Amino acid sequence: MIQLDKISAAPPADLKKKDIREETQRLIKRLGELQRVMYAEKKHSVLVVLQGMDGSGKDGAVVNVFEDCAPMGLQVVGFKKPTEEEFAHDFLWRIHKHAPQRGMINIFVRSHYEDILIQRVHKWISEERVEKRMQSINALEELLAYDNHTQVCKFFLHISKEQQQIELQQRIDDPTKYWKHNSGDWRERELWPEYMRCYEDALNRSSIPWTIVPVDERWYRDYIIAKTLVEHLEKLDMKYPPLEK
Amino acid sequence: MIQLDKISAAPPADLKKKDIREETQRLIKRLGELQRVMYAEKKHSVLVVLQGMDGSGKDGAVVNVFEDCAPMGLQVVGFKKPTEEEFAHDFLWRIHKHAPQRGMINIFVRSHYEDILIQRVHKWISEERVEKRMQSINALEELLAYDNHTQVCKFFLHISKEQQQIELQQRIDDPTKYWKHNSGDWRERELWPEYMRCYEDALNRSSIPWTIVPVDERWYRDYIIAKTLVEHLEKLDMKYPPLEK
Repeated sequence: MIQLDKISAAPPADLKKKDIREETQRLIKRLGELQRVMYAEKKHSVLVVLQGMDGSGKDGAVVNVFEDCAPMGLQVVGFKKPTEEEFAHDFLWRIHKHAPQRGMINIFVRSHYEDILIQRVHKWISEERVEKRMQSINALEELLAYDNHTQVCKFFLHISKEQQQIELQQRIDDPTKYWKHNSGDWRERELWPEYMRCYEDALNRSSIPWTIVPVDERWYRDYIIAKTLVEHLEKLDMKYPPLEK
Repeated sequence: MIQLDKISAAPPADLKKKDIREETQRLIKRLGELQRVMYAEKKHSVLVVLQGMDGSGKDGAVVNVFEDCAPMGLQVVGFKKPTEEEFAHDFLWRIHKHAPQRGMINIFVRSHYEDILIQRVHKWISEERVEKRMQSINALEELLAYDNHTQVCKFFLHISKEQQQIELQQRIDDPTKYWKHNSGDWRERELWPEYMRCYEDALNRSSIPWTIVPVDERWYRDYIIAKTLVEHLEKLDMKYPPLEK
């Protein structure tokens, strides 16, 4: 049972930042190697889901962790407010469309989980529908896993409320970050306890487990995500295909 | 519990063909009216699934029953052998993509059920995977129903083995039907008992029920499908939207 307020958003105190950074560089390289084999073999695929409050560093994680991956085997999909066409379908329609093809790593920056987070916090949907959607989410993720060899790797980027303030403030102070500023983020921040409650529930009811990533220090975020992905991919026993004669 | 060998593929003996044909014409007109309101209101949608052995008249049903529907509110999707891209995804990927947008009737000629029929009969997939796929199918159909107001109307076109022979033979004898001839159909016919067993299992394990349509007489096929669809749509209490000011 995950309780977010019992989990620190800071890295363990005994870690040396310099050592971890070196190890992270090694992991990022290794991830690139593994991804190239996966792309060539076209047997497995990976779905990376990044969820977290505003300012938790989802975009930064994408930029850093996949640095050494070959771009043609990578697809980043950011889910924002649904388009009119998307909205005229069930909530998983636009998600399923972007499920990774064998050989690919698809990265979701936000995802189907928004439909039981922001929508639940604001009470735009009933609790009964939340319940059903949670079951549908589990069913879809299981389908990808058993029917298409998809590794579903979900990361909750766990930021402290204090650190979020610093991050959001930077978007007002730093001209290169103005474009990220959105006054709506400050309003959502007011609903922090409700978001934590809904996140906790989603994390605990997922049939495919999440990795909780403490992100107050960005070097630790990159380390945990890279390490987790490498561990998943190492297990697959992938090989470059033999020469076809 | 459906047992296909207990169900006749012929119409009830006491029906008068002429009366039924007149009634069918009325139903086809009514379906067109209802579809136009649905298209305007954009609140509900319909997924029609047509399954049945070769020669059971799936295409003919599409041509006749939806005659009076407005084409822009209709989408017919025929599922054949998966493309390379489709095959590199889970079996429901290409299906979910074509789920109807609100306001639409989408008609599947063959469907996701092929993935637990032809694939099961030929033992291309394990019984364990059949089991999981059946669950995934139920989960997807339920999702469409609760999250997008989709009426899922599934029709099993029930033909007798004798009538199938007549239908397949016509494809060899009638020059306007040569294009439908496929020697593979005769080979699949040899597997009739296995197909019936797999169909029965799929029909009995579906959480959204099927309509069994006796199709040895085509006028009765059209009648049952039109009647069932009209009954579904009448229940929705649809209205043309008021003038937006």
